[in-house]
Amino acid sequence: MQVTASQIWSAIEAIRKQAPVIHNITNFVVMNNTANALLALGASPVMAHAEEEVEEMVAIAGALVINIGTLSRYWVPSMRRAVQHAHQRKIPIVLDPVGAGATVYRTRTSRELLGTAPITIIRGNASEIMALVNSEGKTKGVDSSALSADALDAARRLHDTYGSVVCVSGATDYILSGADVTKVLNGHILMTKVTGLGCTASALCGAFAAVNGNFAQATAEAMAVMGIAGEMSAMNSPGPGSMQVNFLDALYRLSEENINKLLRIEG
Amino acid sequence: MQVTASQIWSAIEAIRKQAPVIHNITNFVVMNNTANALLALGASPVMAHAEEEVEEMVAIAGALVINIGTLSRYWVPSMRRAVQHAHQRKIPIVLDPVGAGATVYRTRTSRELLGTAPITIIRGNASEIMALVNSEGKTKGVDSSALSADALDAARRLHDTYGSVVCVSGATDYILSGADVTKVLNGHILMTKVTGLGCTASALCGAFAAVNGNFAQATAEAMAVMGIAGEMSAMNSPGPGSMQVNFLDALYRLSEENINKLLRIEG
Amino acid sequence: MQVTASQIWSAIEAIRKQAPVIHNITNFVVMNNTANALLALGASPVMAHAEEEVEEMVAIAGALVINIGTLSRYWVPSMRRAVQHAHQRKIPIVLDPVGAGATVYRTRTSRELLGTAPITIIRGNASEIMALVNSEGKTKGVDSSALSADALDAARRLHDTYGSVVCVSGATDYILSGADVTKVLNGHILMTKVTGLGCTASALCGAFAAVNGNFAQATAEAMAVMGIAGEMSAMNSPGPGSMQVNFLDALYRLSEENINKLLRIEG
Repeated sequence: MQVTASQIWSAIEAIRKQAPVIHNITNFVVMNNTANALLALGASPVMAHAEEEVEEMVAIAGALVINIGTLSRYWVPSMRRAVQHAHQRKIPIVLDPVGAGATVYRTRTSRELLGTAPITIIRGNASEIMALVNSEGKTKGVDSSALSADALDAARRLHDTYGSVVCVSGATDYILSGADVTKVLNGHILMTKVTGLGCTASALCGAFAAVNGNFAQATAEAMAVMGIAGEMSAMNSPGPGSMQVNFLDALYRLSEENINKLLRIEG
Repeated sequence: MQVTASQIWSAIEAIRKQAPVIHNITNFVVMNNTANALLALGASPVMAHAEEEVEEMVAIAGALVINIGTLSRYWVPSMRRAVQHAHQRKIPIVLDPVGAGATVYRTRTSRELLGTAPITIIRGNASEIMALVNSEGKTKGVDSSALSADALDAARRLHDTYGSVVCVSGATDYILSGADVTKVLNGHILMTKVTGLGCTASALCGAFAAVNGNFAQATAEAMAVMGIAGEMSAMNSPGPGSMQVNFLDALYRLSEENINKLLRIEG
Repeated sequence: MQVTASQIWSAIEAIRKQAPVIHNITNFVVMNNTANALLALGASPVMAHAEEEVEEMVAIAGALVINIGTLSRYWVPSMRRAVQHAHQRKIPIVLDPVGAGATVYRTRTSRELLGTAPITIIRGNASEIMALVNSEGKTKGVDSSALSADALDAARRLHDTYGSVVCVSGATDYILSGADVTKVLNGHILMTKVTGLGCTASALCGAFAAVNGNFAQATAEAMAVMGIAGEMSAMNSPGPGSMQVNFLDALYRLSEENINKLLRIEG
């Protein structure tokens, strides 16, 4: 799959112009950062999890992003209902199975969500992706110890079973859709010291999918933008505190020139 | 209504001296920023939502701030109870009807809270304010698409029905109380790219209302301080990440001189 | 008790090498900062509160940190279960009784947790520590108005009853274990203007306890690191916004040299 700097730039311009509402049912740790990242990119974040209103929020959304990072029984019915409604309304659905493999509850809930309606994009680290297809997949907390390439087989099985675009993120991000595997090489090691940038990546997948119906391409665009903004912000960041701040500034200040200069992607 | 720089400065000095406890029942997205903004201003934030303790928290508070940004059935009874108790104790109550109009649940819950006890100050964007009085008021997520001036009629009806001071915030903030309309012109466009600054504004209304029994004036003071701190921080902020950080620094470093120089208010 | 710069540095190196999983059941206000502080230090944060999974999370954790800052009935059973399981697995347990004394609910819940299983480390401000042993202990919100030295008697009673290491934090931090009282003099006044740094301190106690079985020493190490990082970050922080950011950078950039130069501790 071909993803060029100029395609990415067009997608960003579309997001900035349309300001699609991205409906997030996500975890407590990252809500603020996720909302700010979507705003900085040009999208309109909504965070809403009450069963009473998820359908109405889905109805005004351009994409739905489900993230199970601080899962509880009080939220799962809303996640399921939002997924069903997003499917009916034919808007893209992103699933971030945070910590799948670390506990049975997370693995099981992720699989239930996958069974609720077709998920457009699944984005996780290698351990999480493997846990979704393999009952023995165990992770160390929410970190990934496995190399993302090892998870490619799992990603393929997920794609074959559910039809989803699967993104295995890590030092290299792999975006798999059918026979097609795209590698995004952008990113910076300091990003692993900021909590929730994976969650931000999933939210950005939602934003790009809201303006680009080629969902594999949208996912690659989102991951490239994450990596490029990460590289831009790492340059001026003595540590993860300033990195988190500069990352939002970088997202906001992305230009076609930055993307042209920094993009490293293999089709 | 007259609001001068020297009045604002006196109010800030009173907040710094008295450090009033501001009890917030607010949304997950902004809790950290709201608490930090109140601390930076000089107030003492408390975030507490359990039914078991809201009355005791209200009992030590100088103001109550209710924000429905991530509403759920598990929180509504606590909101109601806190409102009732704050009314009994005669402390000011601020309502931020985040996303009213976007879903029936938010509109209905806001109205229920308005019916529970007299709300001292209602602060929302134009869409939210209109939704509270008009069953057809629909918003695009939590953003305001309507011009705030258009919401003045709705604000007047809210005031007439509930006796509340109503603040319609936007590029210009309108503070309405009876026949009196005050316009705060301070602020900066980059503030719209930082999530939750509206929520921060509502919390600051609570802090100023805790030290100034003229609630329309307190609201105008809070909105002016928001706008001035926004202008001060935007000067050094290449994007919304640094804006969020610099905003807290600016609140902390407010001086009578800054306020004198920057205040733009029309009585 | 002796705590030297070289011991602290060894502990940091152990944390960076082992990256122990620190399982936090904490409050909504600080989740993001707590996770980031643990990451910046070199630990692996997990935030998980569902009853369905707390035992599995405890099973992969090197320490459990319970913080009641935004307590509710939906979380207490998970806290209790996590404490029981951590005790069975013999991993250190830290309790941060945020706001104990401000409401009966918080005081009672803290005491219930203390009765559930032996708590390794209790860290709170003077008011909170006093509230745990004294039914008359009342706090003004979550701030401490009492001098931390006044709480030493309460700390001693807590230690005698529950066997816990007790840290009374404030301008001077007192770490009490049996007859032994260690004073950490590091810290900076601007830290009191950033929400949740006390909560961060508790989480760091967990990280140091995960690599150092001398829990009084581990607590002193954590408090010294907090204070030193606070002093390092205050130097370049015009206000609490930049302080919060610089604090994470300082934690990430801690060196043996910094610690040597800045450590102020009395054994």
